[in-house]
Amino acid sequence: VTASPPHAAAALAAALRAIVGPDHVLDVPERRAPYERDTTGRFGAPAALVVRPADTAQVAAVVAACAAAGAPLVPQGGNTGLVGAGVPRGGEVLLSLRRLDAIGAVDRERAQVEAGAGATLATLQAAAHAAGFAFGVDLAARASATVGGLVATDAAGAWALRHGTMRAQLLGLEAVLADGSRIARLSGLPQDGAGYDLAALLAGSEGTLGIVTRARLRLVPALHERVSALFALDDLTAALRLLGRLRARVPSLEAADFLLDDGVALALAHERLARFPLRRRSPAYLVIDCAAAHDPTPELAAAVEGVAEVLEVAVADDTEGRRALWRPREAQHETVAALGPPPHKLDVAVPAQALARFVEDVRAAVARLDPRWTVLQFGHLGAGNVHVNVVGPDPDDERIDVAVLELAAAAGGTIAAEHGVGVAKARFLALVRSPQELAAMRAVKRALDPQGLLNPGAVLAA
Amino acid sequence: VTASPPHAAAALAAALRAIVGPDHVLDVPERRAPYERDTTGRFGAPAALVVRPADTAQVAAVVAACAAAGAPLVPQGGNTGLVGAGVPRGGEVLLSLRRLDAIGAVDRERAQVEAGAGATLATLQAAAHAAGFAFGVDLAARASATVGGLVATDAAGAWALRHGTMRAQLLGLEAVLADGSRIARLSGLPQDGAGYDLAALLAGSEGTLGIVTRARLRLVPALHERVSALFALDDLTAALRLLGRLRARVPSLEAADFLLDDGVALALAHERLARFPLRRRSPAYLVIDCAAAHDPTPELAAAVEGVAEVLEVAVADDTEGRRALWRPREAQHETVAALGPPPHKLDVAVPAQALARFVEDVRAAVARLDPRWTVLQFGHLGAGNVHVNVVGPDPDDERIDVAVLELAAAAGGTIAAEHGVGVAKARFLALVRSPQELAAMRAVKRALDPQGLLNPGAVLAA
Repeated sequence: VTASPPHAAAALAAALRAIVGPDHVLDVPERRAPYERDTTGRFGAPAALVVRPADTAQVAAVVAACAAAGAPLVPQGGNTGLVGAGVPRGGEVLLSLRRLDAIGAVDRERAQVEAGAGATLATLQAAAHAAGFAFGVDLAARASATVGGLVATDAAGAWALRHGTMRAQLLGLEAVLADGSRIARLSGLPQDGAGYDLAALLAGSEGTLGIVTRARLRLVPALHERVSALFALDDLTAALRLLGRLRARVPSLEAADFLLDDGVALALAHERLARFPLRRRSPAYLVIDCAAAHDPTPELAAAVEGVAEVLEVAVADDTEGRRALWRPREAQHETVAALGPPPHKLDVAVPAQALARFVEDVRAAVARLDPRWTVLQFGHLGAGNVHVNVVGPDPDDERIDVAVLELAAAAGGTIAAEHGVGVAKARFLALVRSPQELAAMRAVKRALDPQGLLNPGAVLAA
Repeated sequence: VTASPPHAAAALAAALRAIVGPDHVLDVPERRAPYERDTTGRFGAPAALVVRPADTAQVAAVVAACAAAGAPLVPQGGNTGLVGAGVPRGGEVLLSLRRLDAIGAVDRERAQVEAGAGATLATLQAAAHAAGFAFGVDLAARASATVGGLVATDAAGAWALRHGTMRAQLLGLEAVLADGSRIARLSGLPQDGAGYDLAALLAGSEGTLGIVTRARLRLVPALHERVSALFALDDLTAALRLLGRLRARVPSLEAADFLLDDGVALALAHERLARFPLRRRSPAYLVIDCAAAHDPTPELAAAVEGVAEVLEVAVADDTEGRRALWRPREAQHETVAALGPPPHKLDVAVPAQALARFVEDVRAAVARLDPRWTVLQFGHLGAGNVHVNVVGPDPDDERIDVAVLELAAAAGGTIAAEHGVGVAKARFLALVRSPQELAAMRAVKRALDPQGLLNPGAVLAA
C-alpha cells in the first residue's frame, strides 16, 4: 500500500464524513485501535481511518468515494476472523459493517429471514428461535461473528454436516461492488436461474470481490428432541467407519466432531476440563449430536448396537448431560489458549481416507522441527476438517505453517477449510490450486475490481 | 454467427478428427440431426459439425482447437433443455458430452460419488441406491438428463424443497474453460475455502463460462418410510399457509407441489388421468412427499389435525397409493402435450406472498390477448415456482412470453426458476436484473471467455 499525499487523505476523510457523519469516521488512534488488531493477536496494522456506515446506501457512497480516490478498503464484521482478512495490512480504509445489524421479520411461510451484514450470529439465531425455527449454522464465535463475515468466509461449523456451509443457507444477498454499484437478489427465491449467481461467487470471496451488506437466509425446523453421544475409539479410521454408518442410518445426525486423547490429557492437565465423561480413555473420540422432531435415541441405538469399533459410548438427552459430553471437545480451544504463546492455528481439511495418516504426519513433522512444540488436533470429522493448533517456542516460526499446509496439500486436501485464506495463507494457495485455476480467479478479480481496491492481499497474493 | 471460410472449417474438422477419432466428428446432416433439434421442437439449427469427445483430455483439446480457430461452441448433455441452451443457434460446433458417462465407486464413508458430465440422472440415482444412499435431485427427464446439464442449469425439481438445487449437491467439479485449460476440485471436501468457488459460479451458467466435464456429488440417506398426501384446498393462499405449517412441523417433508382444478379437469377431459383420487374437487391442491427412517405418518397427522384450510386429505404409504396421489400432478405435462400445438413453457417463480395473485393475473392476461389460449399452471410450491404452460393458436406468439415474464418480474419474481435462461429468455434478463448486475455478469463472462465462444447468445444476449 502506497501512502497517499496528505491532502488527498484529508479530502477523502472529508468526503467520508459527509457521507456517514463526523462521529462515524474514526481517525484518532485510540478510537481506531479496536478495529486494527485481530482476535489472534497475529494480524493487524494501522488503518488510514475507520468508517462506519449506517446502511447500504452509505456503504455504496463510501466505496464510490474510495474508488474515486484510489484508496484500498478492508471490510470488517465482528472481527472474529483468524486469517487476517478483516484487519488492515497498513494504511487502508477500514470499513466496519457492524451498524448494518437489522434483522427483518421472519417469513414463516417460507422459513426465511433477511439480516444485515452487521447482525451477529447469536442475534440471528435468537430471531429464528423466537419464530419457531433454527438457523443452520453455528460456531463458537456466535456472539461476535456477523452475517457479512459468515458469508464472506463461507463459514461452516459443526452443523454443516447436516445443513451445509453458509453458502447453502444463502437465498440471495445484497452487496456493493468495487465501483460502488449495488447488486441485490433479495426476493428469497430458492430457485432463481436468471443469470450468474453472483451471491454464490461472493460467498467465500472474503471481501475481495464485493462487500456483502445484507443476506436473505433460509431457516431450518427447530428440533427439540436432541441426543448427544461420545464414543471411545481405537483410532480415526474407526471413527470414520462409525461415522459412515451413522450417516447412512441416523438421519437425525447433526454434528460429528473428533478429538484425540493427547488433547484430552492436556485439557485435564491445564484444568480446562474437570473430569472426562467416559470410564475409559482411548486414542480417539467421536462426539455427535442428533436432533429430530421425535426421540432420536432408538435410531441411534439401532445403528451402533454391536458395532465392533465402539469401545465405549455415553449418551445423554438432557441439556446438562449433553454439555458434559461435548465439554472435552470444547475445552480444546481453551486448552490451546492456556498453553501460553499465540498458537499457530491452521484450519485444513483432507479426504477422509487420508485423515488418520495426516494427523500422525503433522505430529511427526512438528516434532522433527523442534520437540518443544505442542500439537493439538481436532475438528469436524464429516468434512475431513482438522484444526491444527501448534504452540511452542516461536509464534512466528513459518516452518510450522509450511510443514502443516504442505502435508494437507500432499494428502489431496485443502489449506483452508472453514476459516478462509485471508492474508495468512494467500501465498500458499498455489499448493492446492493449479496455475489455470489461479489465472481464472485473478481474471474474475480483475473483472470485478479492476483497481484492486477491495481487501488487497487477501485470498490472492499481490 | 459468421460463417467461416470453407478451408478454415475443413482445417478445424480435421483437427477435431485427430483429437476424437473420425467416428466422433459428425458432419453428415443425418447424423448431426438428433443433436440439432431440442425436445420442445422450438429451438435448434444446423451445427457446423458435432464432436463427441471421450474424456476430459479430449474435451480440453477440442475447446483449445475451437479457441484457436475462433469457432463458437455449444455444449450439450442429454438434450432435455427447454430454453434452447443446448442446441445450435446456427453454425456452431456442437460439443456432445454424452460419452463422458462414467460413474465412480460410491464413497460410503463420506456419502459421495463422482460422475461424468454425460452420466444420466437415472444412472446416478441407481448407483446411489445400490450403495444404500439416494441422490438429492430428481426430475421427470431423469432417463436422459445428464449430470453436466443438471449442473449447468442448476436443476432443481421437487426434492429441492428438502435437499436444495443441484448447486447444493456439488462438492466440486472438473471443467474446461474457454481457452482449453482444465480446472478441477474433486477431493470431495465439503468445506474448502481455498480461493473463489469456481464450481459455484459455473453451476447455473449454462455452459457460457466453462464446460463441466465431471462432478463430485454428495449423497443423502436412502429413506425407506415414505408417505404421500394430497390436500384439497380453497386457494393457493391456503396451500401456502398449510405448507408453512408443514415445514415447521414435519422435518420428513421432501416435496410439495401445487396444481389447480382447471388442470385436473383438462387431464380428465383428455384422458391423461383416469380418475381423481379425492372425493371432492376444489380450486387448488397440494401434493406432498414425506420420507424418513421412521414412519412419518404420526408427525404428518399431528401437523394437519384440525387445520381449517384442509377441505379433504388422502394419505398413502404404499407405492401404488402414493403414485395415485401424485398422478394428477404428473398428468399435467402429458395434458399439455395432448392439447396439440407446441406449448409456450415459461418456468418462473414469484415470492410466496405474490403467488395466488400471479396465477390469476396470468390467466387474465392471456385471456385478454385471445380467449382461445389454454393456460395450465402448476409447480413447486416451496420455491414459489410456477410452470406456466400456454397452448393455443400460435406457438410463436411472443406476446404470451412477454406478458407472463413481465408479470413474474412485476411480482418481484424471476423469469427463470429451474430451467435456465438459455436463448429463449436472454433478452428478458433485464426485467429482473439491474444494469449493475448485468454489467457484473458481462465482466465475469469477458474475464473467462474473452472471445465469447462458449454457448454464445445463451444467458446474456449478444
